[in-house]
Amino acid sequence: MTFVVVGGDAAGMSAASKARREAPDREIVVFEKGQWVSYGACGLPYYIKGEIQSLEDLVSVTPEQFREERDIDLRTGHEVVDIDPGDRTVTARNDDGEVTVEYDDLLVATGAESVVPSIEGTDREGVYTLGSMTDGKELREFVARSRESSPVEQPDSGPACHFLETCEGAVGIVGGGYIGVEMAEALAANDFEVHLFQRGDRVLKGFSEATSERVADHLREQDVALYLNAEVRAFDGGEAVEAVVTADERVEVEMALLGTGVRPRTDLAEAAGIELGPTGAIAADEYRETSAPDVYAAGDCAEVEHVVTGDPDYVPLALTANRHGRAIGQTVTGDPTEGGAVAGTAAVKAFDVEAARTGVLDHEEARAAGFDPVTETIEAKSRAGYYPEDGTVTVTLTADRGTGRVLGASLASGYGEGAVHRSHAVVAAVTEGVTVPELSNYDLAYAPPFNTTWDPILTAAKVLGGQL
Amino acid sequence: MTFVVVGGDAAGMSAASKARREAPDREIVVFEKGQWVSYGACGLPYYIKGEIQSLEDLVSVTPEQFREERDIDLRTGHEVVDIDPGDRTVTARNDDGEVTVEYDDLLVATGAESVVPSIEGTDREGVYTLGSMTDGKELREFVARSRESSPVEQPDSGPACHFLETCEGAVGIVGGGYIGVEMAEALAANDFEVHLFQRGDRVLKGFSEATSERVADHLREQDVALYLNAEVRAFDGGEAVEAVVTADERVEVEMALLGTGVRPRTDLAEAAGIELGPTGAIAADEYRETSAPDVYAAGDCAEVEHVVTGDPDYVPLALTANRHGRAIGQTVTGDPTEGGAVAGTAAVKAFDVEAARTGVLDHEEARAAGFDPVTETIEAKSRAGYYPEDGTVTVTLTADRGTGRVLGASLASGYGEGAVHRSHAVVAAVTEGVTVPELSNYDLAYAPPFNTTWDPILTAAKVLGGQL
Repeated sequence: MTFVVVGGDAAGMSAASKARREAPDREIVVFEKGQWVSYGACGLPYYIKGEIQSLEDLVSVTPEQFREERDIDLRTGHEVVDIDPGDRTVTARNDDGEVTVEYDDLLVATGAESVVPSIEGTDREGVYTLGSMTDGKELREFVARSRESSPVEQPDSGPACHFLETCEGAVGIVGGGYIGVEMAEALAANDFEVHLFQRGDRVLKGFSEATSERVADHLREQDVALYLNAEVRAFDGGEAVEAVVTADERVEVEMALLGTGVRPRTDLAEAAGIELGPTGAIAADEYRETSAPDVYAAGDCAEVEHVVTGDPDYVPLALTANRHGRAIGQTVTGDPTEGGAVAGTAAVKAFDVEAARTGVLDHEEARAAGFDPVTETIEAKSRAGYYPEDGTVTVTLTADRGTGRVLGASLASGYGEGAVHRSHAVVAAVTEGVTVPELSNYDLAYAPPFNTTWDPILTAAKVLGGQL
Repeated sequence: MTFVVVGGDAAGMSAASKARREAPDREIVVFEKGQWVSYGACGLPYYIKGEIQSLEDLVSVTPEQFREERDIDLRTGHEVVDIDPGDRTVTARNDDGEVTVEYDDLLVATGAESVVPSIEGTDREGVYTLGSMTDGKELREFVARSRESSPVEQPDSGPACHFLETCEGAVGIVGGGYIGVEMAEALAANDFEVHLFQRGDRVLKGFSEATSERVADHLREQDVALYLNAEVRAFDGGEAVEAVVTADERVEVEMALLGTGVRPRTDLAEAAGIELGPTGAIAADEYRETSAPDVYAAGDCAEVEHVVTGDPDYVPLALTANRHGRAIGQTVTGDPTEGGAVAGTAAVKAFDVEAARTGVLDHEEARAAGFDPVTETIEAKSRAGYYPEDGTVTVTLTADRGTGRVLGASLASGYGEGAVHRSHAVVAAVTEGVTVPELSNYDLAYAPPFNTTWDPILTAAKVLGGQL
């Protein structure tokens, strides 16, 4: 019985590790085309920022540990070039040639790749993406190089130059999603003048408008130049990038980062005749099994079921990859385990603001799933009104008017004031199909240093309840 | 139609305000024996600490606002001396004599009073309780007086003297519950040498042992002298208290605070023939109606239903008082509204540690409710392992072995690291009857500045799941 895994990051290594724990004698082979496995790509912005000193710190388990301590046949530097579900084989290529192994169970965990938009000049030097450890390494090297050649006098005092035409050290970020926002913080902390270009009318478009506004306001407070409704047309320059060009602006930069999303890596699966779903990612059933028998898919290459709509969705995030990988590890060792649905939950820190979202917020999406959505946004104190530290939590709550069911929420607060951890309660609510009146009756913890007597979550539910 | 309320704090004023909003023409009379109404007693420790400058800051709505803006006939300085459910009358006494009013609906919201244990010397000067605004005022005056007579040279550098026999400014706190712990912080911040006496073997006994230990360790780190298994036998002294005496110790103090719990004020209700429940507090049905028709009870004088056990419980906390008062305000104005059960949730800050608990943790209590309890405690990083700020969350999770149902949780972390807000998810879980495997599948928000990929809540659920 051989369990073969294609891709050695979160989903793949979680599955391999769990399978090993459950089946000490099982042959487990993992093919990874790169040299890094089991790494926390989510930490890359903090590595580039300089808060994490070594790329190795992002690795939770090293290749050696997988091989020696977990007895997993991990083959790095092996790119899988063919999956044959008929013959039940996988063929991989490395520097020495090709190798073909037979599998009893196979996990496709090929991940996602950064989308490079069709814009002139993306191939110029100094135009980066941030999808891999190698990308992270290159970006950190760029930061180090740039800061060395034009050292900043007061490294801790914020951006050294404020949008002066003559300023050196300007960078352009294209895309106002997680990567864009986190990298704005990382680069500003290194005294770059950050220009953030967002095609749409707000950053963090999967969050509520109120969250987007709060984050955008804060980005501006932090001297990030924010360009909304700004479609980038070209990266001008010679060999290296020299400017980001939109319809209205030409902004000189010494570097540009593409934070324009990811797409699932499905080439191998498609070539093997494995079905993709409506989102374009690999389709899988509740046990994460694909259309090919005993072939599973998990992580950023695969679709997931949304807990609110019941529909397939594409939400490439770390927790789901870990969880689905773990479930597959159990399933292939004799304990069939469902992967579980997702709520589309996400969190992000932007300088001193934190934000989270979960469930269905978009009214069009809600209507498509058969709901009659209604939304309210409140802003409430994050601590008792009389408590000395003064902050607020912005809560957007969406429900179905007919049933009162909570569909989703988006929250923002100062960092450390609980928008993200408070969202946990709403994840529970959307997962359990709780109604707004039920949520507003939750006996949530209260003490003056943590909230008002009615936590902002409860206040939002009370206010939204008035609209039902 | 007259709605009469006895007691002008959280439950009473919430009910009166809600009734006024729903029924603009209703006659609403509130009798309050003191001068303060609608105050946040939970804020008193922070007032005494000096973080809140004025007692008035703790008042959310003033008597004048209730009278003028909300048109509520609020009669402060009126002590109700008789309730007659047969005649449907309430009699109150003030300086001018007695007044009797007829009611159509009546709310008994008489609150709770501090328990003064039967210990010799509690009547000595310098022995305080903290149950009322007046108590808070006296304690703050004591602090001001004491600090003036023996000024501390470096007020911000922590306790000025460390348990030297000759040290002035030692205070004794009896009881390691919320009040005891919060007041230890408040008094230490004013450079008192704090001695905390706990009869049982741990502080915060309603929390898990792991939480109690973490808080106790932190109290000691903050130079609080903690005496466990220390039953106080006497407060020695002359006119004023001079020492706290236990079986083993005689600790000289200039002040002693009794944080030995509260009991419901039920005298009026009992005299009126209104039934008390098994906890000794006023019994009420799901609409908060007592055994006397159209007589309701809410707040710290009344019993509540526990959402896990379904049994009556006595959990005198602010949110329940507010919520039940509000529900009664709706009910008496024609919209019968259930008050809702409680999960026994509570939160506390102790210096730089925060803690929360919810549900049923005690195994004896769980077994009495028909469960077969099993408990696990984990300690997990509060942020991604590689993220620079280093802290942990301790999570204790209890479930029923047979069904896997989550029964309760207790959490502790550094202040601002989310023990309290993370507990919100477990409140949802215990309220909804969620199982441990279901909880461990929740798609909780993740990003490196907020948690590990599996939030500590999920890790606790995974570990406990292994025991089911």
